[in-house]
Parts: sequence; C-alpha cells; structure tokens
Amino acid sequence: MTHHLPLGPGREFDRIRAIAAALGPAASSLGGDCALIPDVDGFLAVSTDVSVEGVHFRRPWLSSEEIGWRATASALSDLAATAATPVGVLTAVTIPADGSDDDLVAVMRGVGDAATAAGGTVLGGDLSRGAAWCIAVTVLGRAARPLTRAGAVPGDRVWVTGSLGAARTALVHWQRGEPPPADARQAFARPEPRIAVGAKLAALGAHAMLDLSDGVAGDAPHLAAASGVALSIEVDRLPVAPVALAEAQRTGVDTARFAAEAGEDYELLVALPPLFAERDAVELTHACGVPLTLIGDVRAGAGVTFLLHGCEVALSGFDHFRA
Amino acid sequence: MTHHLPLGPGREFDRIRAIAAALGPAASSLGGDCALIPDVDGFLAVSTDVSVEGVHFRRPWLSSEEIGWRATASALSDLAATAATPVGVLTAVTIPADGSDDDLVAVMRGVGDAATAAGGTVLGGDLSRGAAWCIAVTVLGRAARPLTRAGAVPGDRVWVTGSLGAARTALVHWQRGEPPPADARQAFARPEPRIAVGAKLAALGAHAMLDLSDGVAGDAPHLAAASGVALSIEVDRLPVAPVALAEAQRTGVDTARFAAEAGEDYELLVALPPLFAERDAVELTHACGVPLTLIGDVRAGAGVTFLLHGCEVALSGFDHFRA
Repeated sequence: MTHHLPLGPGREFDRIRAIAAALGPAASSLGGDCALIPDVDGFLAVSTDVSVEGVHFRRPWLSSEEIGWRATASALSDLAATAATPVGVLTAVTIPADGSDDDLVAVMRGVGDAATAAGGTVLGGDLSRGAAWCIAVTVLGRAARPLTRAGAVPGDRVWVTGSLGAARTALVHWQRGEPPPADARQAFARPEPRIAVGAKLAALGAHAMLDLSDGVAGDAPHLAAASGVALSIEVDRLPVAPVALAEAQRTGVDTARFAAEAGEDYELLVALPPLFAERDAVELTHACGVPLTLIGDVRAGAGVTFLLHGCEVALSGFDHFRA
Repeated sequence: MTHHLPLGPGREFDRIRAIAAALGPAASSLGGDCALIPDVDGFLAVSTDVSVEGVHFRRPWLSSEEIGWRATASALSDLAATAATPVGVLTAVTIPADGSDDDLVAVMRGVGDAATAAGGTVLGGDLSRGAAWCIAVTVLGRAARPLTRAGAVPGDRVWVTGSLGAARTALVHWQRGEPPPADARQAFARPEPRIAVGAKLAALGAHAMLDLSDGVAGDAPHLAAASGVALSIEVDRLPVAPVALAEAQRTGVDTARFAAEAGEDYELLVALPPLFAERDAVELTHACGVPLTLIGDVRAGAGVTFLLHGCEVALSGFDHFRA
C-alpha cells in the first residue's frame, strides 16, 4: 500500500488516495478492480460496488428487477476484468419509505438473475430502511491466474470488447425527458458482464485488463498508471454502438468523443502482446459472440494520449460524483 | 435453500423469507450469520452488514471515526459468531451533500482501526454520493471448523458472553435528548467484536452460536429455529451491564427485561454441551477477559421460552426497521 496509488486523475480518485494515506498499512489493495486473496488454487477475487437511486439511476427509468440486475452486473464486471469465475454475491439493500416489500423482492430477483447468469448464487445480505434505494453488491470469484490493471508493457496493443456509448445514449434521453431507444435502454438496464470474454482474454495471454465503468477516457489512465506505461489511443477506432452513432449525429457531437466519454458500458479494456493479431480477435468474437477492436498501443512513459482525427485531444471521464 | 428458512419471527425475517422464496436455487445460504464457501483448509466465511444514518445511528451521536468503527465491528461480529479469523473488509460508502472529504477519510480511518484490531485489513470498497451516510461492510474470514446457528442439541446449555444493555442505554439517552453515560456511549460507539472468544468457544466444543445484534429476545429464536430445538432462557440470569442496571432502575423498567430486549450489544449467544462447566467459563473469562454466563438450556421442541421471576413472559426483539 502506498500513498501514491497508481490511479489516474479525478476527484473520486483523489478521495481514494486520501483514504489510502489515512489507512496506511490497514489497507491492502485499494484502487484495483478486485482485491486478490491468495488461495491454494490461485486467488479469491472480491470487489464491492454500490448503486444509489438519484446518483446511478432514477426510479422511473428502471423496473425493480433491472435495478437489482444492473447493480449486480456492474459489480460482476470487476470479476470479469480480473478473469475470475464468479462464486456468488452479497447485497446490502436500503429501502426508502415508498419502497414496498414487493419492490424489494423484485430487486433481489434481479440480483439473483444476474448472479445465476454469471454462474454464481446469492450468498447473503442485509436489509435496512434508508432515504433512497441503495444496493451495495459484493462479488466473490476465483481466479487461477488473475489479471490486474498492472502488467501492460511497451509494445503491447490495446483492445476493447463490445461497443461503446449505448448506455450513455439512454442516460441522455432520460435526462432530456425522452424515452430512450430500446437498444440504449437495454444496454443501461441490463448490462452483460464480460465474464467469459475476460477469462478467454486471460487464457490468450492478456497482460492487463480493466472494465470501463467510467468510459475509455476515464479508465484508460488507470491502466496506464497501474502498469507504469503510456497508452496511445486512437479515439476514431472506438467501436461505437449504432444507437450511440445515431444519437451523436442527431445532436452534432463528435461520434468518437461521445463513445470515449461514455460511462456505464462495462466493456473490457485489455492490453495484449503484439503476437495477438486481428485474426485472433475474429476467432475470439466467434467463440464468445463479443467483438474485440484494436484501439491503440502501449509505450514507455506515463499517461494516455487520445488521438482524434490525428490530433491529440483532452477527454473527460464519466464521474458519478458529478453526474 | 428452502422457502422455509430457519429464522425466528419478525417482519425483517418475513422479508428475508420472501426473498429466499423468489430466488429459489439462486440463493445458497441466506439467513445465517455468514455464508460459508468450502475452501481447502475449511471454509471462507463472508457476511455483509449495512449501517445507515437515521436508522442505525444519528450524526450528532457519533464521531466520523466511530461511525466507521461501529459499522465494521458490527459486521465483524458475524465472523466472531462463526468462529472465523478475519481476513479483511470491503466497504461501500455513500456520502451526503453535507459530508466532507475529511469526514469520509475519518469514517474510513474508523473502518481501518476496527479491521486491524480484529487482525484484518481494508481490502477494497466503493464510494458514491447519497442522501445520507450509509456504510455497507462486507467481512471475509477463514474458519477451519465454522460454527453456525444450527447444531444445538437437547441437553446443551445456553451461555452468553459479556454483559447486556449498555448500548441500549446510550440509545435511550440520545432519544430523550440527554448525553449518555460514558460506559453506555462507549458500548454503542465502539463495540468490540468477540473474535477471540468466538474462536475459543468453538475450540472448546460449542455446538451453535450467533451474535446478539437484535438482543437475546430477538436472536435466540433464530438459534432455536436453525437448530430445530427449543430453548428455555432464564431472563433473570442475564448479565446486565451496570450502566443498564442504573438506567432500568431509574426509569422503573424491569432490569432483566431491559437487557433481554436490548439490541446492538454484539455479544455471543452459544450452546455448549453439558460437560462445559462453570469452572470452564471462569477459565475462559481469565483467558479472554470476557465473562461467560449460563442463562438457559436446550430441549426437544421448537421456539424459545423466556422465564422471568419463574413465569413465562413474551419479549420483543430489537427491530431496525422499527427503530
């Protein structure tokens, strides 16, 4: 544990750095996707994620089941990034005065669906009254050979799974008071943690990985900082979800920038050695049904350079404290 | 997993039963103190506990450090009840608009202090804005031979650690708008999870154990239900904290009833075979510095009989949803 946690910039990460400084040796592995506890067959991977009404979602946007699914899927995404196999989840749920027992059961049904879809179970939890719905999900998994954000080396290439921007498209529709297109809504309400792809990428020799809860712009700097390398990312190469393409064009925003600054996608950003070729990516896509797109490379140095139409640009990460 | 979870009565437990029914096979071990995941050397024990401002505590009662300590100690108490050795904790913290970064760091210092006092570390966490302070703590431990609430058999005797009622004394003072006596305040603000005593009781052959977050009146029925036995508890025998004795006498409440219905004590209720004698209890007290008091016995049947001055009485458990 160091006071200089290898995290990228941002106020949320300044808070985590301040906590790590105060905790000193009482903290052991803050700042990564999962904590890794040595086990006989490898590691136990654990992570906690909290979803709060009014911050991460608003009640009218989602059904109770979707609130539970989304909270759980976003936590499971940290296991995916660690190449861990889910064992189970624990949930601490606070229920506002206007929340019924039926709502609670439906939220927990969503939690259970997301856990079983990923191969795990609901191991336990706690309930309390509260001012708003708040679902804290702890995930446990096992990883024989876990991946972390550290491990990328100069010469590696940077890839991203799936497509980006659909969840943000739903968010901007809701914020404008419009119903989002079905694809966008689905991406936000029922994200699919990339468990199988994460495990496959680890088996194929990936060096470092993280999940994109705060977008490529927000999260790529963490991978660079943890690995002690520089990343160069060609933003034009980002795989943009069709529904996000339509949204960016309609509102006159640069498509690539829209996708790079979009949070909540829960896709994986991964550094693979140069031997991993486009052909391997096509095979992986066939095996897992998830596209893998080359978006940049790893160099000696520090920080992330984002190139848009050949020019360096400054991008903003997605910040839940600000949202 | 069954739809008829072996839990005692109460609306919170009706909610847990409804969740278990909805989850079916997606749930694996709801209703106990900890979930137990088989490991090579025994079991990994995990549990989640949530502490919410306005429900479990009010801001003016506690310092930020105490909010963190108390939330963490109450979660660690579930490891104590399982006879597990703490590995670490994860925390999901929501911070209200009037909460500063300094408050957050102080809360986490309290979390770290409680984790290290129990032999663990802070493994990770998540932060979010929220409507109130809400600290969800997940604890992880290892247990070679875990204890659960199931396992008590007729002929066993029922014991309780420490003394009861001090935390409730603090609570009733605050609710009356009075500052609580120092001993009462300390019991509420900085409870000590009974980690060492729990491990020692397991080693001495305890059959079943749980921690008293909802008081003897609220929690004893869970041990009876999980073990499929009846308990007879002589409420007059309960070890009452001196400060609780003074409070009960001052307000004209029956002392034993006050202690039996007091939540938040985080003492252990344990079923030990009859071979375990008063002499062994004295030895344990010398070894661990925590008294152990004989309060009842285990019989064939179901439910808990509370005897007060020789007569059967109905008692109420402490309910966070109601508090």
